[in-house]
Amino acid sequence: MFDPRPIGIFDSGVGGLTVLDALVRRFPDEGFLYLGDTARVPYGTKSARTVERYSVQVAECLLRRGIKGLVVACNTASALGLGALRAHCPTPVLGVIGPGCRKAASIIATLPHPGRVGVIGTRSTVASGAYPDHLADLDPRIQVYSHPCPMFVPMVEEGWLDHPSVRLIVEESLAELRLKPMDALILGCTHYPLLAPVISEVMGPELTLVDSSSAVAEELSHYIGNVIAPAPPGGEAHHVAFLVTDVADRFKETATRFIAGMDEAIVEMVDL
Amino acid sequence: MFDPRPIGIFDSGVGGLTVLDALVRRFPDEGFLYLGDTARVPYGTKSARTVERYSVQVAECLLRRGIKGLVVACNTASALGLGALRAHCPTPVLGVIGPGCRKAASIIATLPHPGRVGVIGTRSTVASGAYPDHLADLDPRIQVYSHPCPMFVPMVEEGWLDHPSVRLIVEESLAELRLKPMDALILGCTHYPLLAPVISEVMGPELTLVDSSSAVAEELSHYIGNVIAPAPPGGEAHHVAFLVTDVADRFKETATRFIAGMDEAIVEMVDL
Repeated sequence: MFDPRPIGIFDSGVGGLTVLDALVRRFPDEGFLYLGDTARVPYGTKSARTVERYSVQVAECLLRRGIKGLVVACNTASALGLGALRAHCPTPVLGVIGPGCRKAASIIATLPHPGRVGVIGTRSTVASGAYPDHLADLDPRIQVYSHPCPMFVPMVEEGWLDHPSVRLIVEESLAELRLKPMDALILGCTHYPLLAPVISEVMGPELTLVDSSSAVAEELSHYIGNVIAPAPPGGEAHHVAFLVTDVADRFKETATRFIAGMDEAIVEMVDL
Repeated sequence: MFDPRPIGIFDSGVGGLTVLDALVRRFPDEGFLYLGDTARVPYGTKSARTVERYSVQVAECLLRRGIKGLVVACNTASALGLGALRAHCPTPVLGVIGPGCRKAASIIATLPHPGRVGVIGTRSTVASGAYPDHLADLDPRIQVYSHPCPMFVPMVEEGWLDHPSVRLIVEESLAELRLKPMDALILGCTHYPLLAPVISEVMGPELTLVDSSSAVAEELSHYIGNVIAPAPPGGEAHHVAFLVTDVADRFKETATRFIAGMDEAIVEMVDL
């Protein structure tokens, strides 16, 4: 059985494109429909109720377009909206928090001592406790240190990746966390992989950074063929369409930092 | 003729509280109803169409509660939504751009040479050209240098006012503008007055910073008694109520940086 419909993927803005990039590389035969809720970005400063409401509206928009599965490529929406999304969606729904935690736990499992994992994310993701909860389910001995980095999303959305102040902002944001002994640091926001070089510099190159995007791609491979029918082989390879809720031009500009060739993509505006 | 109804005032978030503070001090007999559209902050990265739509929704909410006039205490909404707001509102509508420009022009008028004015604001405010247009109407000889400072709103919303990196971010954001000769710098966003000490340090203490809040208070005094009936004397002095569209607790916390005593205010959540 094949299913030619695309897989839906959404984020508050451009951050989820790091996940989309990993998915497009891993599944060249599948089509993807990406929605960036750019009118209402950022999600990470908003309440659980609002994030849940916005996530369901986004999912309904993607479902109306016809998708066969949904990847929630936003850690805040995964932390706060996954339950509501699974209740609303007739299709399988995959978040980014579970895969990231499983990847971190697999790294920890190779160590001779109980693991210590750092988690950085938006204010709402950290406040939700979703990461410590997931990690405790996987291994109750894991020591988790969570810390919000609220300036990272605005920096990445503005393309501030190598300005002189970026290193200082990252240093200040991670000052407390640097004092903790840890074996891995989860980049608990899809925007953060773009700051990985600076984060690694500040935290020390020996610390393993866990980027959820490859973990999500790995996890989706278990869905496809099991709960999601694959695309017919030899179809429209790499077919990706983009929806945004505001300012399509700026989305393209920012998105080119994430995915090569994005400047030629068709981006459609939608009202939610 | 007296009118006991409050004056509505709105901003995307907490920035407009700098204006509210000036109004409450200037008009102790008037009541104010403040709405912070905290679910959809920031406005300054959004398109004209979206800012206009959000502004009209906010105004409709305030009008349903019964206001006798509306102060748009957000430069982006003033730049992009004032026309639509005036078309929709049966009450007088006052923005922040006109008053700020008139204040700058009055400073320039005292100089022996044609004035040079810098304007900093959000990306959308600067892109709108509203400041150069207004200033040219007042004095076509004024030379205007505009520059967006997109990192300032997230910094202020996060309470980053004196972190070590704030000075560096302000320096980087103003690097181009510092090279221009200028007589006054308009803080074209209601969040920016909180960064005035750092901005002044970076730009040099001899440069006059124009903060719209006192200019708006001055301008409103011409409305009250003319197009807006004053509150009956001896009424509920300093009566201020707050509406937000998300996370009322964080609003109170951030707002205490703007207005003394705000932590005891009643803040109500509304859906738009």
